[in-house]
Amino acid sequence: MTVGGGGRAARRRAQIRAEIITAAAELFSARGYRATTLDDLARRLGMSKTTLYGHFPSKEDLLAAIFHRTMTLVESGLADIRKSGGPPVEQLRRVVRHQVRTVVAEQSFLGVFFAEETSLPPRLARAIARRKARYDRSVQAIVEAGVRAGTVIAPRPRLLVWALLGMSNWAYRWFDPRGAWDADEVADAFVALVERGYLKTAAPARHDAARRLARIEREVQALRPLLDGRGVTRP
Amino acid sequence: MTVGGGGRAARRRAQIRAEIITAAAELFSARGYRATTLDDLARRLGMSKTTLYGHFPSKEDLLAAIFHRTMTLVESGLADIRKSGGPPVEQLRRVVRHQVRTVVAEQSFLGVFFAEETSLPPRLARAIARRKARYDRSVQAIVEAGVRAGTVIAPRPRLLVWALLGMSNWAYRWFDPRGAWDADEVADAFVALVERGYLKTAAPARHDAARRLARIEREVQALRPLLDGRGVTRP
Repeated sequence: MTVGGGGRAARRRAQIRAEIITAAAELFSARGYRATTLDDLARRLGMSKTTLYGHFPSKEDLLAAIFHRTMTLVESGLADIRKSGGPPVEQLRRVVRHQVRTVVAEQSFLGVFFAEETSLPPRLARAIARRKARYDRSVQAIVEAGVRAGTVIAPRPRLLVWALLGMSNWAYRWFDPRGAWDADEVADAFVALVERGYLKTAAPARHDAARRLARIEREVQALRPLLDGRGVTRP
Repeated sequence: MTVGGGGRAARRRAQIRAEIITAAAELFSARGYRATTLDDLARRLGMSKTTLYGHFPSKEDLLAAIFHRTMTLVESGLADIRKSGGPPVEQLRRVVRHQVRTVVAEQSFLGVFFAEETSLPPRLARAIARRKARYDRSVQAIVEAGVRAGTVIAPRPRLLVWALLGMSNWAYRWFDPRGAWDADEVADAFVALVERGYLKTAAPARHDAARRLARIEREVQALRPLLDGRGVTRP
């Protein structure tokens, strides 16, 4: 076999692994990790259990692969955003979009990720907890840069981070691919909400300003004839 | 045994049931429902398995009790808010507070509620899904009342509902009772965020307009004594 042929075999193997992981994520998220057997998975894939074991010797290996792939996806999206170096407000907007898009595009993976933490073996649970903490700190750094730049209001940056991630991540529970909105419409609605809020407060403030301006205009108009009548010349 | 004695016995029984349910919620949320046995639970409660079975014949009965209690808690809080009949903006604010407070006060229950849906028997799963849908519609009705009253901006009311609930519910994952904030501080931060947003754009604009208006008002007021000094009488 040539080296090129070996490369093809490795690619084919990686492709099969990806198919197995995706099918596992779908089964685990629909039925729960513990309720799913490798028999169910082999049947779903139309694959012998021997072939399946050749790729993943245990169900736990599959769970680990799902957690690592999910973490890598969200981390690499955030790394791209931070590398872009735009203003913090733009970066935060992109974080919400990235988060919603990932949750929607990888709903099964995120479903397992969010529901099966208690099924992780302790060492893996600790590794994932560390990566999640690093991710949260990274988003918090953007919030804090916005606060320093004077463009973001966040008396408690960590709570803003959790609000943004919670709102976006929650979509793994309710997002319906056949529903009324795609990921970008959801993200746009969320960005509008967290950037400006849902209160129509600006309007009363403008109303107040308009009232005060009108009063001043009346007063200035009342002043002019007085000045004109006294022969005071306009500059 | 007197009737009064019977009442006491019933109260004592209800109290024991509540203790069992609470201990079960703690174990299920920490280790996962399927990984927990009734033996673990009996040991934790310092109770014989026979006594435990007398209250809950199966683990599934315990899971059902946890789901029903959680749903009843969130529903009754929302019913109180709707009965209060305040303006929609005030009701929405109370919904966020109610949601955050419940998640924080009942973290184990909500942990089971959010993570163990796939463990529910189909009939119970359908019943819970119906109650959750009714809850969401009820919050949406408040949003829509706010839109009609002209006090709430929500081009897609359902997305606002999911944003509010997602943000608040997510606290079941990160809230630390020994942490820096209590439930009300978290809720206040969330309310400020969703009502006004984190952008400092609207504020500077209003601030700037107010500053310019104040300057004009001072100037006009300064004109009057000058005119008075010239003997100009006010009309």
